[in-house]
Amino acid sequence: MSQESRTTEGDLRNTGMSLKHERTWDYELDRIVEEATERGAEKVGLQFPEGLKRRAPHVADDLRDRLPDGTRVLISGQPCYGACDLDTYMMRRTDVFVHFGHSPMKESEKIIYVPLFSNVDVTPIIEESLVDLADPADDPDVGLVTTAQHMNKFDEMRTWLEERGYTVHTRRGDDRLTHEGQVLGCNYASADIDAEQVLYVGGGKFHPLGLAMEHPEKRVVIADPVNNAVTIADTEQFLKQRYASVHKAMDAETWGVVFCTKIGQGRWEVANDIVENNESAYLLTMDEVTPDRLTQFGFDAYVNTGCPRITTDDGPQFDQPMLTPGEYEIAIGEKPLDELSFDTFHGTW
Amino acid sequence: MSQESRTTEGDLRNTGMSLKHERTWDYELDRIVEEATERGAEKVGLQFPEGLKRRAPHVADDLRDRLPDGTRVLISGQPCYGACDLDTYMMRRTDVFVHFGHSPMKESEKIIYVPLFSNVDVTPIIEESLVDLADPADDPDVGLVTTAQHMNKFDEMRTWLEERGYTVHTRRGDDRLTHEGQVLGCNYASADIDAEQVLYVGGGKFHPLGLAMEHPEKRVVIADPVNNAVTIADTEQFLKQRYASVHKAMDAETWGVVFCTKIGQGRWEVANDIVENNESAYLLTMDEVTPDRLTQFGFDAYVNTGCPRITTDDGPQFDQPMLTPGEYEIAIGEKPLDELSFDTFHGTW
Repeated sequence: MSQESRTTEGDLRNTGMSLKHERTWDYELDRIVEEATERGAEKVGLQFPEGLKRRAPHVADDLRDRLPDGTRVLISGQPCYGACDLDTYMMRRTDVFVHFGHSPMKESEKIIYVPLFSNVDVTPIIEESLVDLADPADDPDVGLVTTAQHMNKFDEMRTWLEERGYTVHTRRGDDRLTHEGQVLGCNYASADIDAEQVLYVGGGKFHPLGLAMEHPEKRVVIADPVNNAVTIADTEQFLKQRYASVHKAMDAETWGVVFCTKIGQGRWEVANDIVENNESAYLLTMDEVTPDRLTQFGFDAYVNTGCPRITTDDGPQFDQPMLTPGEYEIAIGEKPLDELSFDTFHGTW
Repeated sequence: MSQESRTTEGDLRNTGMSLKHERTWDYELDRIVEEATERGAEKVGLQFPEGLKRRAPHVADDLRDRLPDGTRVLISGQPCYGACDLDTYMMRRTDVFVHFGHSPMKESEKIIYVPLFSNVDVTPIIEESLVDLADPADDPDVGLVTTAQHMNKFDEMRTWLEERGYTVHTRRGDDRLTHEGQVLGCNYASADIDAEQVLYVGGGKFHPLGLAMEHPEKRVVIADPVNNAVTIADTEQFLKQRYASVHKAMDAETWGVVFCTKIGQGRWEVANDIVENNESAYLLTMDEVTPDRLTQFGFDAYVNTGCPRITTDDGPQFDQPMLTPGEYEIAIGEKPLDELSFDTFHGTW
């Protein structure tokens, strides 16, 4: 399986969002047509997340009907799993470039971000999650986080919990995060709050797992409004898999150090530090990080300084062990085994 | 199988070049070190064709030994099958960028092209090929073409044939070709010569097949010095496969029209003409054209205006029919079936 089939943030297909609910998304066609017309655009570029690529021709049809005659609509065929996957080639070569489904990673006058908020009702599942949260009489403090596609319901979630006696703690993460309470697959700074329990409202396992790894002292309750399930984030299985990779990599004689060229994923200092201090480590630069691409080089192990989800979600698909920078330090004996932690991107870029 | 596993021009692995012969390649390390030192380079980028990626760490080692302390060597992890696959991201972000194994597609002061000529002896296989060429007493005219990695032996080939009584016809292709007598996977203009037989010296089936398709009136003799085999290019099997795809595509109600963003592969007019004249056709832009990427969109059929090798070599791996622009015209009934021809890139870019 290549990276193209990955499940990552923004892949609505794998959250079941387009499967389990009859729902229409607001593509904000009027806004797009208005801006394109105003700017006299000759080329309008559209980029959809993987799970919505099938809707692309229909959205293109609607736009072609409304745009001035002769306007050319282009659809990006580049993989798109999240906000980092901005098609910069298309952005540079179109007059208006529309990125659907993710929050802005890079601001530009040319880009129109259409968030595609989910209109699934979140209160039923939050109600169900109450059995796993402490009774507000015992511990009223609860952190609240969600993903981009449920941000439109964030105030509703907060109010709902407050009405039931909770003190809701929220926080905006760092500069990379657009909204208060929003988490990214690589950033949980919005959960750095003063509460022992955190309610995560959203689909997927990766976000709450990262949360639980990053905040091991907190209890992370997952309320998934899409699959209608409440669970507690369990890091054990995840940790086992990571330790197995680290152990395997301890025998590595040569290392490929991946520097990812995608917007928001380039950690040059991290990558550079590794090769500067290990003469058996080599810097590899690429956009998509796939098993095929790495295998060609024949290194014994790899360190991925790009998207942590590739390491942790896709790790088992790679033929050689693939570690996060922190895991690499453990593998080469610079850090003790028990310091294994989740790879997150903090701070500004 | 994804595009990453493709066999295309410059993939030395699949020509057997690195397998069947004990051979060293001249990486021209002195030239690289000299230029990097002269320019005070802090970052030196290296890009290898797929078949030589395993040598990358060793070449990097040799360079790190010779370059001034602190120079950072980066290796491109992008797929690289030919001259079109120039890693422009790496080119922009390094002080010296070395592209190994292909002729120049784009000239820039920053790029060092290291051709990696093969030192395999070509005369034994040319001698063997004589049984398939006309006797010079009957027909002395023979065209001579080869690929980039054997260009260093081109004069030797020509002289050898002339000494045996042949009149050797050679031609430089158009602006995209660096050398007289050179063919690319998408360009056979160097075989537009006044002879009924053409001798192709090189590995792989694709080049001579393209040649035979492009010049159906000529007999194309393949002398493969790497696999030590002489054959005659046979287009029948190839044509059957192409006709099957065209037939399947005749039922298509929706079309994805791929515009490839790689240097040298962008045929905007061709792609634009198709969508302008077919309201069920949609423009898709991407760099790597893989089955995974196309399947996401769910079109009934695709037209690839980028590298013809993806259509013809990889075509059967795609879930939907994938046609060349010429085949598309047949599928929609604009051209008769018997006008099926090979997709080549002629003219300037």
